[in-house]
Amino acid sequence: MTIGIGLLGLGTVGAGVAQILATPQGRHPLVAALALRRVAVRDLQRPRPIALDPSLLSADPEAVVDDPAVDIVVEVMGGLEPARSLILRAIAAGKPVVTANKAVIARYGEEIAAAAAERGVYVLIEAAVGGGIPIIEPLKQSLGANRIQRVSGIINGTTNYILSRMADEGAAYTDVLADAQRLGYAEADPAADVQGGDAADKIAILAALAYGGVVPRSAIPACGIDRLEARDVAYADQLGYGVKLLAVAEQVALAADGAAELDVSVNPTLVPRDHPLAGVHGVNNAILVEGDPVGRVMFYGPGAGAGPTASAVVADILNIAGIRQVSGVGSSGQPAPLDPLLAAGSWRPCRLVDPALTRHRNYVRLRTSDQAGVIGRIGTCFGDAGVSLQSIVQFKPQAGGDGAHAEIVVITHEVPESAFRAALAAIEALPVVDSVAACLRTL
Amino acid sequence: MTIGIGLLGLGTVGAGVAQILATPQGRHPLVAALALRRVAVRDLQRPRPIALDPSLLSADPEAVVDDPAVDIVVEVMGGLEPARSLILRAIAAGKPVVTANKAVIARYGEEIAAAAAERGVYVLIEAAVGGGIPIIEPLKQSLGANRIQRVSGIINGTTNYILSRMADEGAAYTDVLADAQRLGYAEADPAADVQGGDAADKIAILAALAYGGVVPRSAIPACGIDRLEARDVAYADQLGYGVKLLAVAEQVALAADGAAELDVSVNPTLVPRDHPLAGVHGVNNAILVEGDPVGRVMFYGPGAGAGPTASAVVADILNIAGIRQVSGVGSSGQPAPLDPLLAAGSWRPCRLVDPALTRHRNYVRLRTSDQAGVIGRIGTCFGDAGVSLQSIVQFKPQAGGDGAHAEIVVITHEVPESAFRAALAAIEALPVVDSVAACLRTL
Repeated sequence: MTIGIGLLGLGTVGAGVAQILATPQGRHPLVAALALRRVAVRDLQRPRPIALDPSLLSADPEAVVDDPAVDIVVEVMGGLEPARSLILRAIAAGKPVVTANKAVIARYGEEIAAAAAERGVYVLIEAAVGGGIPIIEPLKQSLGANRIQRVSGIINGTTNYILSRMADEGAAYTDVLADAQRLGYAEADPAADVQGGDAADKIAILAALAYGGVVPRSAIPACGIDRLEARDVAYADQLGYGVKLLAVAEQVALAADGAAELDVSVNPTLVPRDHPLAGVHGVNNAILVEGDPVGRVMFYGPGAGAGPTASAVVADILNIAGIRQVSGVGSSGQPAPLDPLLAAGSWRPCRLVDPALTRHRNYVRLRTSDQAGVIGRIGTCFGDAGVSLQSIVQFKPQAGGDGAHAEIVVITHEVPESAFRAALAAIEALPVVDSVAACLRTL
Repeated sequence: MTIGIGLLGLGTVGAGVAQILATPQGRHPLVAALALRRVAVRDLQRPRPIALDPSLLSADPEAVVDDPAVDIVVEVMGGLEPARSLILRAIAAGKPVVTANKAVIARYGEEIAAAAAERGVYVLIEAAVGGGIPIIEPLKQSLGANRIQRVSGIINGTTNYILSRMADEGAAYTDVLADAQRLGYAEADPAADVQGGDAADKIAILAALAYGGVVPRSAIPACGIDRLEARDVAYADQLGYGVKLLAVAEQVALAADGAAELDVSVNPTLVPRDHPLAGVHGVNNAILVEGDPVGRVMFYGPGAGAGPTASAVVADILNIAGIRQVSGVGSSGQPAPLDPLLAAGSWRPCRLVDPALTRHRNYVRLRTSDQAGVIGRIGTCFGDAGVSLQSIVQFKPQAGGDGAHAEIVVITHEVPESAFRAALAAIEALPVVDSVAACLRTL
């Protein structure tokens, strides 16, 4: 039984998918049952990285979705529209969808999931987070016995590449970014990556699966690496930490109504050197899942790229093809029963807690006057606010400093965010303190 | 719809499973649909780590399998018999099976899979390899688009614990083993762990899934850590490597008949310090999968223990419960259609290649006379055999040495095993060489 695939988009990922479908030898035998039937492209004349029968190409993506020879719709065009509308159109036609589009799923996941559940079709999204790393399927199908405590990930390859080079070379953010753009590791407009928005999209998706409810993307606070200074990477290194852009979703409470109360955010974070996430370098991604009773499991691999992402897209297609052998195709009109693990519907409300009520470890760098007693006054401000400290270290002023200033780095224990903010306000008001020059999280 | 669970065994893992089933709150809602109906134990009077209604307990495992209230049979008793017979009995009764028994699956997997396919039931084995790490499901359901090139894993926690302590403390194998036994990290009879047999069971299972065919367990060469000397761990460290017990399954060729020709083995192996597997310490496990086009993905976590293993067992139960909602229970007599990914049948022959025809990097430690020209003669022997070398290093004789002997460590490039063996034979025949004192693999 051949299964017809309609591909929306033939960019890097789309070409990678077509490449796998064209060369089934040595892959799972179900790959040979997949036939590429139509491909929607923006420009029919553009040269392609893969040779395809020109009769497969169409400039009309709706026609690809509607084509009766297309059984599964694969959306790899990216962007919010028309991707969202095409996904909904496929669902309405009773066709399962595979998408790599984290932006659409993070924003319209609820709408899409509701439509899919009503129509009885799967919408699978393994490629939306972590490139080639199996993380969506394991969260859905391998960790359901657990109460998930925390999901923390390095899930943006561009920023991890930049941070790795800043650490290795002691280089400034702007210099490494320019080089990464030249090498193709960063986009011409890097905002979504470096400001943390892409990681926020992805942690919204991971949190929804881990905790079983919709997580409002727009409410996730995201801080990127675009204001990170090389000296903070260097100081962190001297203190035994690497700096990573971490996306974290942590369950902080179970509400009386059964809702999971979550602390979800994206922040540049100091990671102790012996932590499993500390060894993730370059464009690799890794996601650490902590649950009861599994403990800590980590998933690591290439977070982007044509091959890895296409591997994840085709895995989703295979899962749909596999389960069709159990359930049949489903009569039109009647919603087919769905495997609740593969379909991954919501099963409880999830809420983000007030950020002021969360608890974290923090790294703070202060610019101060270089005079005796400063550390004591700073320590007193933290103490008065109930913020317990792990260390206060005064660093040698960098070359080019004026000698009248000092840099003091504080690492706190895990403390309430409100107490920490109160302490920072008191410290900023001290005459000996010029500024709070940097403020990062610490694992 | 409640699904009845029959548990064979109430040891560490069995109690962990019962614990999860008894506390469904906050886990996937499908856990609440599972009801523990019968539990087979060896001794009804023995105290249990978990309080269970005594009426659930039975000393007759066949009665548990046969109980009409039991829909899914969970085998966590271990050992070859009666585990194998009970698994086959459940299959014959049309009941899906979940097992953590790597020894049975590695040896009788083919017989069990054939019976399961004929009867149309699933036999799921996530807990058999890597404890709580999702690795079986990802191999089956997330990596099917790939041509798998290599699976390499640290899949025995006991030996990794011993090796980690040998490296950290410079301690001798026998001392650390005795301590590990005292602490419960090693069995009173540690043979299966330290001689590599347990890891060979597990790599046989992983290779069968990765390459889609039966891998003969008895033909897998396994070398353990029981003859590893502390000085080799120390020398490896000085050369920039950690020593890990690696189980590796590599495809070396695709035969004309479509068979995958595999090099599968277990060996103490030098792992470069920047390799993802080098950072796996203590009782943790990790499995690195390399494939085209995914590249390198790694799965990391606790390789043993009640909680992690029970997490994997319940994941399998949930997968069976989930797919029953699609397929129904299946009428008795007629084999139900199975999801080919979840069922993971064989789809091509797999053969182990002649070890003499494989290629590896090697670490060799030679005891030699301490005189000029020895390194030259050794280098010549390797060169004459066509073995290209990465390094030859003479190490300072250890304290307690007699001063007349030297230790020379050689690391080769990747070379044919036959050429390497020929070179070693020539070197052993040299009058200046006392012995080939150690021979390990190198990544």
